[in-house]
Amino acid sequence: MAERKTTLAPLLNVRGGARAVAFYKAAFGAEEIFVLDNEGGVVAHLSIAGAEFWLADESPEHQNPSPDTLSSGAAGGSTVRMILTVDDPDAVFARAVAAGARVLWPVEDQPYRWRVGRVVDPFGHHWEIGKPLR
Amino acid sequence: MAERKTTLAPLLNVRGGARAVAFYKAAFGAEEIFVLDNEGGVVAHLSIAGAEFWLADESPEHQNPSPDTLSSGAAGGSTVRMILTVDDPDAVFARAVAAGARVLWPVEDQPYRWRVGRVVDPFGHHWEIGKPLR
Repeated sequence: MAERKTTLAPLLNVRGGARAVAFYKAAFGAEEIFVLDNEGGVVAHLSIAGAEFWLADESPEHQNPSPDTLSSGAAGGSTVRMILTVDDPDAVFARAVAAGARVLWPVEDQPYRWRVGRVVDPFGHHWEIGKPLR
Repeated sequence: MAERKTTLAPLLNVRGGARAVAFYKAAFGAEEIFVLDNEGGVVAHLSIAGAEFWLADESPEHQNPSPDTLSSGAAGGSTVRMILTVDDPDAVFARAVAAGARVLWPVEDQPYRWRVGRVVDPFGHHWEIGKPLR
């Protein structure tokens, strides 16, 4: 019998870790589990109403590039999307946009029966904010 | 009072969705919540012992590039790491490597009090497999 519950949390590589912590607090109401800020940069463990994720200052030399670095000169984008499922996607989406996220598409009912919208945050990470429709 | 628990799950953009589903089953014992395979490619919702994630065939034209696409010609890497926390990192790591993941560093006790190792999967996504030390 396993003692520890299996969990999976994304770690976002960013350029500007301290600014990113501030942004995710403003955009998603994220709370700090911990934030380390040392010579290697910021490493943070954050929670959005219990949904945990991490971020760290990029270190491309250790294969941890941010979207800014990896997509420079290319079409852009990130290799992973964050699927944020919430009770009120319209409100969460609006708050993120007010905090500086850029709208890729607005919150709408989709034929696959989700109400969802998508933003890019100032660090190049993509968030789909939605919930399944009944 | 919110009716819906807030959750955050990563969605991995891959080149070869069907192969990726098979790989994550072999490597991590992932189970299907659902797998859709249509003309747009594969979209899958998977669970590793209750830890949920998604994958989809890449569509770079919609800003959903895989690591293969985004890092082509560059140093490589992915913009997000998967932090997989498990009861027995050594066993989970060994299984992933046996299934075809490439070792970036082996499972070892780290000074920040995690026992953790890191692999790259055949689709270019990076997984840190570990647990906090007591």
